[in-house]
Amino acid sequence: MILFQCDYNEGAHPKIMERLMATNMEQTVGYGEDEYCAQAAAKIRKACGNENLAVHFLVGGTQTNMTVIDAALRSHQGVLCAVSGHINVHETGAVESCGHKVMGLPSSDGKITALQVEAAYLAHVNDSSFEHMVQPKMVYISNPTELGTVYTKKELTDLSKTCRKYGLYLFLDGARLGYGLASKENDMTLADIASLCNVFYIGGTNIGALFGEAVVINNSELAGDFRYFIKQKGGMLAKGRLLGLQFDTLFTDHLYEEISAHAIAMADKLRAAFEKKGYPYLVESGTNQIFPIIPDADLEILGKQFGYCYQERVDAAHSAVRFCTSWATTEENVDALVAAISEL
Amino acid sequence: MILFQCDYNEGAHPKIMERLMATNMEQTVGYGEDEYCAQAAAKIRKACGNENLAVHFLVGGTQTNMTVIDAALRSHQGVLCAVSGHINVHETGAVESCGHKVMGLPSSDGKITALQVEAAYLAHVNDSSFEHMVQPKMVYISNPTELGTVYTKKELTDLSKTCRKYGLYLFLDGARLGYGLASKENDMTLADIASLCNVFYIGGTNIGALFGEAVVINNSELAGDFRYFIKQKGGMLAKGRLLGLQFDTLFTDHLYEEISAHAIAMADKLRAAFEKKGYPYLVESGTNQIFPIIPDADLEILGKQFGYCYQERVDAAHSAVRFCTSWATTEENVDALVAAISEL
Amino acid sequence: MILFQCDYNEGAHPKIMERLMATNMEQTVGYGEDEYCAQAAAKIRKACGNENLAVHFLVGGTQTNMTVIDAALRSHQGVLCAVSGHINVHETGAVESCGHKVMGLPSSDGKITALQVEAAYLAHVNDSSFEHMVQPKMVYISNPTELGTVYTKKELTDLSKTCRKYGLYLFLDGARLGYGLASKENDMTLADIASLCNVFYIGGTNIGALFGEAVVINNSELAGDFRYFIKQKGGMLAKGRLLGLQFDTLFTDHLYEEISAHAIAMADKLRAAFEKKGYPYLVESGTNQIFPIIPDADLEILGKQFGYCYQERVDAAHSAVRFCTSWATTEENVDALVAAISEL
Amino acid sequence: MILFQCDYNEGAHPKIMERLMATNMEQTVGYGEDEYCAQAAAKIRKACGNENLAVHFLVGGTQTNMTVIDAALRSHQGVLCAVSGHINVHETGAVESCGHKVMGLPSSDGKITALQVEAAYLAHVNDSSFEHMVQPKMVYISNPTELGTVYTKKELTDLSKTCRKYGLYLFLDGARLGYGLASKENDMTLADIASLCNVFYIGGTNIGALFGEAVVINNSELAGDFRYFIKQKGGMLAKGRLLGLQFDTLFTDHLYEEISAHAIAMADKLRAAFEKKGYPYLVESGTNQIFPIIPDADLEILGKQFGYCYQERVDAAHSAVRFCTSWATTEENVDALVAAISEL
Repeated sequence: MILFQCDYNEGAHPKIMERLMATNMEQTVGYGEDEYCAQAAAKIRKACGNENLAVHFLVGGTQTNMTVIDAALRSHQGVLCAVSGHINVHETGAVESCGHKVMGLPSSDGKITALQVEAAYLAHVNDSSFEHMVQPKMVYISNPTELGTVYTKKELTDLSKTCRKYGLYLFLDGARLGYGLASKENDMTLADIASLCNVFYIGGTNIGALFGEAVVINNSELAGDFRYFIKQKGGMLAKGRLLGLQFDTLFTDHLYEEISAHAIAMADKLRAAFEKKGYPYLVESGTNQIFPIIPDADLEILGKQFGYCYQERVDAAHSAVRFCTSWATTEENVDALVAAISEL
Repeated sequence: MILFQCDYNEGAHPKIMERLMATNMEQTVGYGEDEYCAQAAAKIRKACGNENLAVHFLVGGTQTNMTVIDAALRSHQGVLCAVSGHINVHETGAVESCGHKVMGLPSSDGKITALQVEAAYLAHVNDSSFEHMVQPKMVYISNPTELGTVYTKKELTDLSKTCRKYGLYLFLDGARLGYGLASKENDMTLADIASLCNVFYIGGTNIGALFGEAVVINNSELAGDFRYFIKQKGGMLAKGRLLGLQFDTLFTDHLYEEISAHAIAMADKLRAAFEKKGYPYLVESGTNQIFPIIPDADLEILGKQFGYCYQERVDAAHSAVRFCTSWATTEENVDALVAAISEL
Repeated sequence: MILFQCDYNEGAHPKIMERLMATNMEQTVGYGEDEYCAQAAAKIRKACGNENLAVHFLVGGTQTNMTVIDAALRSHQGVLCAVSGHINVHETGAVESCGHKVMGLPSSDGKITALQVEAAYLAHVNDSSFEHMVQPKMVYISNPTELGTVYTKKELTDLSKTCRKYGLYLFLDGARLGYGLASKENDMTLADIASLCNVFYIGGTNIGALFGEAVVINNSELAGDFRYFIKQKGGMLAKGRLLGLQFDTLFTDHLYEEISAHAIAMADKLRAAFEKKGYPYLVESGTNQIFPIIPDADLEILGKQFGYCYQERVDAAHSAVRFCTSWATTEENVDALVAAISEL
Repeated sequence: MILFQCDYNEGAHPKIMERLMATNMEQTVGYGEDEYCAQAAAKIRKACGNENLAVHFLVGGTQTNMTVIDAALRSHQGVLCAVSGHINVHETGAVESCGHKVMGLPSSDGKITALQVEAAYLAHVNDSSFEHMVQPKMVYISNPTELGTVYTKKELTDLSKTCRKYGLYLFLDGARLGYGLASKENDMTLADIASLCNVFYIGGTNIGALFGEAVVINNSELAGDFRYFIKQKGGMLAKGRLLGLQFDTLFTDHLYEEISAHAIAMADKLRAAFEKKGYPYLVESGTNQIFPIIPDADLEILGKQFGYCYQERVDAAHSAVRFCTSWATTEENVDALVAAISEL
């Protein structure tokens, strides 16, 4: 069985494993205040082109989302996002458990627009009952989105301007950011993202690390007291240097970019195979997540040998599914899947 | 200026005021443990045809909703309701502030169906990521709904069966329950509601009282420790007898029914006037809330003399608005509005 | 049975009842945006000697405490108070239910000192694990305290200075403020309190009103968006004018002061009787709450005719109890109790 | 500089690192549903002597505490613990952030007794205002405690009986459980703990793992839906097999016991050195945490070469500090510290 259902089926990049081994018995102080974390943060700041960014390391995505959002919002404030947003669907109400409403905006491709945000904001402030409603105060997007699509620089710039205009925080969930930056549709740099967002994170769990998300904050209000929130939400790893070491490795010699690019190359091979077969897509995407619509009979055949993720029923005989590649996907496995597809 | 924008513009029914005056200097114990509360609860139990119901008195609707919902749900559970539901729109995220997701279901008339509830429940339990999603555990409806519509006995029975089948609590917000029961479309009794729901409340604020909602619980799990929740959510009135006295009065000699019927009679007169004029409705309703679609030019004229509530823009030249009658609406004021309508 | 167990056994001052009756069928807009509320707020601002104060009306004390505290604190911040503070003991964890730790400081008389606050604050910031601990951000006191004692102007000034020095909000719970201001130990005016605190409230429930607390805010950060919090916590009364009317009446012609003074006069009579009898006090207080230590045998006799509140066991044969007077206490009832005491 | 300030200064036991390396590129399903987790859970069940226990793996201690406690309590319920309990002091209010009060009981050695729990429970149910107070529903203890002390089997049995008698959950935080079980004062087995507690966890972070806590649940109510809570609180590791692998290794061939015993042997050597020097203890303990009271002048000398944790000032010239050993402490480092102590 070869697994393509997600991008966290394997462990970590060998270079990370080597460093974990090499430093295993070193003594360091805890809770992310060690030298490895400091060093990794410095490299990330440099990659983002801004010496003044605050950088923090957390363990996982849900934890990071709830920590950032709860640090940003007062009790009467909520966060706007696509209805399909991870925080709205797949985090067991973590944001609501911190007391905040997630306010879903319609989206067919996982993205939301500056116009939607503006409309939602204005609808709130212009409503005579505005104090009876949750106040929008943050915009959450993910890039790539849940559906593998990416924002263009123009789209993100527009969102950023709208957020600044109305005093909303712009938060970008980059659990798969490397794959987004490496995709052909992308026209942004990490520095663009760092300057357009108030806060975002660089995913390690899905891209080369055992676990870990690097939060980058470009806003003094959000940055203040942020470590209290990390601790309160259970995200302050005792042996914090594990996070520092991993991100230090990922941000040395462009490893993060390199392994992200590998995943995209593997995905492109798969996309070619699906297209050759004539399968349409639920949503067209250029990142490491592919959502073909496949006849159920074919799926059954593929499922005997390959793991995929069931997305949704399209009609009585077709389903949309998700195939993922990752930094760890071998060309051999992709070739096996490509062959299987062509034989269907 | 004559106000028709809501059903809580005036004080309380004269009989209530008289009793408040008559008993003003009596000494009673606090927090709803007095004789008046006991007596009112007994009358409500009788009207509901069930001696075993738990009855509690709270001050207002938002407070009641958050108290009931938080008493019912564990942290990972959420409440299903119409997207237009009061808890989803007009309570500043009170339910979320208690940590629970409000899960909106589409609805054009303010109602949701047993089929929708079943689909939402099954979608959850059949999803392979179900533990990554909020677990539906309660269904919240209001009767009448936010749009003035009422559930039929068949509809409520279906909802009730579905909820029982899947272990969901059924909670009915009856802030305007009297107006619902008095409407021509209604085919239920209070006893029907009490037996079909796990918990509901009988609104006093909008129907004859200065304030107050009577929560009726038909479920031992929900009833246990309920007073702790009332206290924690700030709903335990020190001079609790004020609530007991008001509901005792409303449930003596059918006062609640009588004054509800008056509001409906007044609404029917208004409806006739709108219909004569040929105005369509945003939603057809038979209760005390009327939602005509009116040319903006006409609205401007009406607005000089009559208060109404702006609902939504329908097209460039028309708006849907809300006119409310209540137990306190005078025939004189209705006649004035009817005349103004016919003159448009 | 004559009740002395608390100060909310009766209804409202006759002048309030008269105005409720007189205005009962007037139409006003809801949610505290009516003219009566505006007028009452203006009178309270004037009594506080500051035109710039924000004034809001809520229904009850627990509700007010949780609303103010949650409006002030971010998720990682807590509130310092006496261990005996109402929020720490008698509100079913309402503050914690909003996510905030109540941090109790030792106190034998219900008061806390500027030195205690400073020590708690410095202990936090000087601890190397400070981010692993809740950050103190607000100081909650009540005046009078739970034990009937009052702060001197010097004590409150010191607290205020310490709070300002360290960026802590000072919040005074004045559920019984009138009784405090009327007591012989008091050396403050309402204006003193308004200028020394960031936020406080003037209790109506215990002093002449059917219910209601007037929150006075002297801080722009706290004042911003405060109505969202009132709504979210279930404290926004639909018929808000009921609150405006009551406070307008209490702040007309010094009614609030006058009826508070009456309660103190009644309490002083009772104190004289207990002292004559030689009963010691659990805590000496000069307000409307008296805490004598009484032989159990005597208590049993008193208890047949008079209601009191059991406070705590002092030794095998003695208990501390609470007797309360209020604006509504009749001299006749006090005389009856005085006579009963002297006969013990 | 040799660090003795805590027991998480190093990485993981070499056997764990080897397995992480050996399995790094294996593909497994995520979120703890892999074979390694199943295998580790089976070994833990066996070590606990009960096939019916539910076992779950989380990343860290604060996360585990908040997840277990929030899964157990309804909103009006609180958790009893020693005032010095980790949840009460060093988790930035994580439990309160979930809405629950932490109710501290006095303790000089970090332990609480069955009698204290009973008294607290009875004080609640016998108070006439019980519904105005948080309802105690869980007892949290840690073993070893924050002060390195351990519960005897008799003490834990008494706590367990009291909890069962009054319907309280008994929860044991075993972040350092191995060190407790290995200490000379201990007279319990893992099976004893598993049968006496409703829920407890076996700490990996402090004992041999990179991170990880194994939660063991012996109660069907708590066990139900527990994975929803893990996800909601951000504790569901994507690459869950990292946790399974680590605990599988720790519970193979008694590794967990063996490395725990090493830490105790190292601590015993240190204790002998402090005793020889004549330093008293803040609290006597037999586990891996030692709390000597040391003259400040001596501390300054030691501090140049050895890391320790400052605990509290004892008098003008003496401080209590904490020295920790762990599975990773080398005899060489201990000998260096012993030598330094004897030279003071």
